[in-house]
Amino acid sequence: MKIYRKAFLPKGFQASAVASGIKRSKKLDMALFYCQEPAKCACKFTTNKILAAPVKINKEYLKNNRQFQAVIVNSGNANCFTGEVGLRDARNTSIYIAEALGLRKESVLVASTGIIGKRLPLAKIKQAIPKLVSGLSIRGIDQAKEAILTTDAFTKEITVRFLIGSRMVTVCAVAKGAGMIAPQMATMLCFIFTDAAITQLALDTALKLAVDNSFNCITVDGCMSTNDSVILLANAKAANKTIDTGKNFNCFSRALNIVCLELAKLIVRDAEGASKFIRIEVDGAKSFAQARAVALSIANSNLFKTAVYGENPNFGRIVASVGASGIEVKEEDLKIKLGPLHKKEVDVYVNIKRGSASATVYTSDLTPEYIKINAGYN
Amino acid sequence: MKIYRKAFLPKGFQASAVASGIKRSKKLDMALFYCQEPAKCACKFTTNKILAAPVKINKEYLKNNRQFQAVIVNSGNANCFTGEVGLRDARNTSIYIAEALGLRKESVLVASTGIIGKRLPLAKIKQAIPKLVSGLSIRGIDQAKEAILTTDAFTKEITVRFLIGSRMVTVCAVAKGAGMIAPQMATMLCFIFTDAAITQLALDTALKLAVDNSFNCITVDGCMSTNDSVILLANAKAANKTIDTGKNFNCFSRALNIVCLELAKLIVRDAEGASKFIRIEVDGAKSFAQARAVALSIANSNLFKTAVYGENPNFGRIVASVGASGIEVKEEDLKIKLGPLHKKEVDVYVNIKRGSASATVYTSDLTPEYIKINAGYN
Repeated sequence: MKIYRKAFLPKGFQASAVASGIKRSKKLDMALFYCQEPAKCACKFTTNKILAAPVKINKEYLKNNRQFQAVIVNSGNANCFTGEVGLRDARNTSIYIAEALGLRKESVLVASTGIIGKRLPLAKIKQAIPKLVSGLSIRGIDQAKEAILTTDAFTKEITVRFLIGSRMVTVCAVAKGAGMIAPQMATMLCFIFTDAAITQLALDTALKLAVDNSFNCITVDGCMSTNDSVILLANAKAANKTIDTGKNFNCFSRALNIVCLELAKLIVRDAEGASKFIRIEVDGAKSFAQARAVALSIANSNLFKTAVYGENPNFGRIVASVGASGIEVKEEDLKIKLGPLHKKEVDVYVNIKRGSASATVYTSDLTPEYIKINAGYN
Repeated sequence: MKIYRKAFLPKGFQASAVASGIKRSKKLDMALFYCQEPAKCACKFTTNKILAAPVKINKEYLKNNRQFQAVIVNSGNANCFTGEVGLRDARNTSIYIAEALGLRKESVLVASTGIIGKRLPLAKIKQAIPKLVSGLSIRGIDQAKEAILTTDAFTKEITVRFLIGSRMVTVCAVAKGAGMIAPQMATMLCFIFTDAAITQLALDTALKLAVDNSFNCITVDGCMSTNDSVILLANAKAANKTIDTGKNFNCFSRALNIVCLELAKLIVRDAEGASKFIRIEVDGAKSFAQARAVALSIANSNLFKTAVYGENPNFGRIVASVGASGIEVKEEDLKIKLGPLHKKEVDVYVNIKRGSASATVYTSDLTPEYIKINAGYN
């Protein structure tokens, strides 16, 4: 298995980007990801009860079919809390792209990130489409990965390659997210492209596993976005023996895990205002879910996060947040190890001696800089 | 009903305080509350799964009886995460006081607040007891209310008086808590004294109602303490017709609600580093619990709290945190009103149009000052 810290689109995928004017900064703000043939699709969306219009539209499309050929993304406007008109705007964006690409309806997924509660400037989007379509190329990923960003300080990208039999399979992904903490913006988006031949069930299962261990194991401020989306397209162009279960599934699943976990960690590293990268491992739980719940309870404790910022080895705050998780733990069973705090990377290990499951959660410290960034207008 | 912003102990109660040396600052750090005759007792404790030793001891005592005559409190050391020796120290403190007051065993409740994970200096406590006992007086409440504080900027106290028939009933309370945010300390303590004659069931019911609407409706940083305790003693000295159900219960319950809510608000006002007092009313819920869950989800959102600090009317963050509460809400039903943000007191009103229940939660903004205070050693 080879890992590259750069996005290389697999066979059959193209991308492009433009500056449509949604962002006042005139930076790239629309990205188009295109697959020349219909690709199998697996998605994971936010569990927030208020869903942005693009998430609603995708969910509607996914009820009817699981084959898609494109994803259209805009940054600068989340198209959230925009009511019926927002739904219409998201659907129309998808239809315009399908028409421009000569695709059937409902084959283009949508994603948005940016300000909540403002209508999408549909005229600007419409105007940008010809250039998006004509600009499609395998190299276009280099612009597309920039166009999906908002307050991110750097691009998040990765490619993993591995063999199935004699066939080389590629999994490539780009992501957006600066810890869900940007002013008036709060989104994690991830687009994953693979040329693997794989059954729908195997694709869904692998994505669920990978997201559970990565994007669902990071937190910056515990705030849950209305737009979070992970979209995975698989076009079978590698012509490998179709991945179903067994050894080949494990191989694909491992690659997808690496892709998602590395991008998730990059999002935490980009958390605005953060000065430390914190790794919290909880062991001795009855299940992965229980271990993660304890780890997230620590990771979301403002008192713990400020103590790490202050390089203050305050294990009382860890104890209190373990207990606050609601998991039955006994004081006498609790084992806590806290690594050196003067380093940029801080490790916390907690054993609750209830079982043998473990989970690792990644977070950042809470700093005055975080407040300054999030208090400001934008 | 008369409300006094000062503690006046009801008939039959006395208090005292000393500086025992637990606090390095040499400030008052032990308080004794005493009732000349056995009083009925109702208590509410933290739901944190890690309990401090004094909370464990009180729970043990309350299994065997519901009549108590004293509460011994120390500040500066939470006696939490102190294992078997911590339990022994808490029990011994209670026993020493019972002996000094000539009371039977298990008639003295205990409370501690301060640093977690350090053993209680039992010798200092023992040495302080004669002075605590000899100093008991009705005026002693003025020192006792100081002695229970840690990083609080001011005392929290209130007295409510009302008539039942021709008898004047008094409910007096003192509390400690600066938003559960002090360095290495994290506690809310409240001691309530009344001369009402009341049945045990009515006392328990009234306290549960009052705490649900007050201390369980405030949050500063969402961090849950291991020591939180509300202890209520009722000695029947007012000689009123015993409160059971009906009109008299409502009267007592209303008084207790006022006492708890005013003290809870004072704790939020004392939240260290806070610059704003935020009132969040959620209406149109199916139940009080649902309304409170939505309000707390907003109140615990770091993004919302920093926006209020920055006087940034970001209703997107309110929308996202309503959805993050997990309560089924429809975007089109959601009604949000945000009061002017340049004021010291900020009002948020949210209607979710699911029913007719409401709840009000109080919180503070999140400021760089909060981080500075909580990052430091102490």
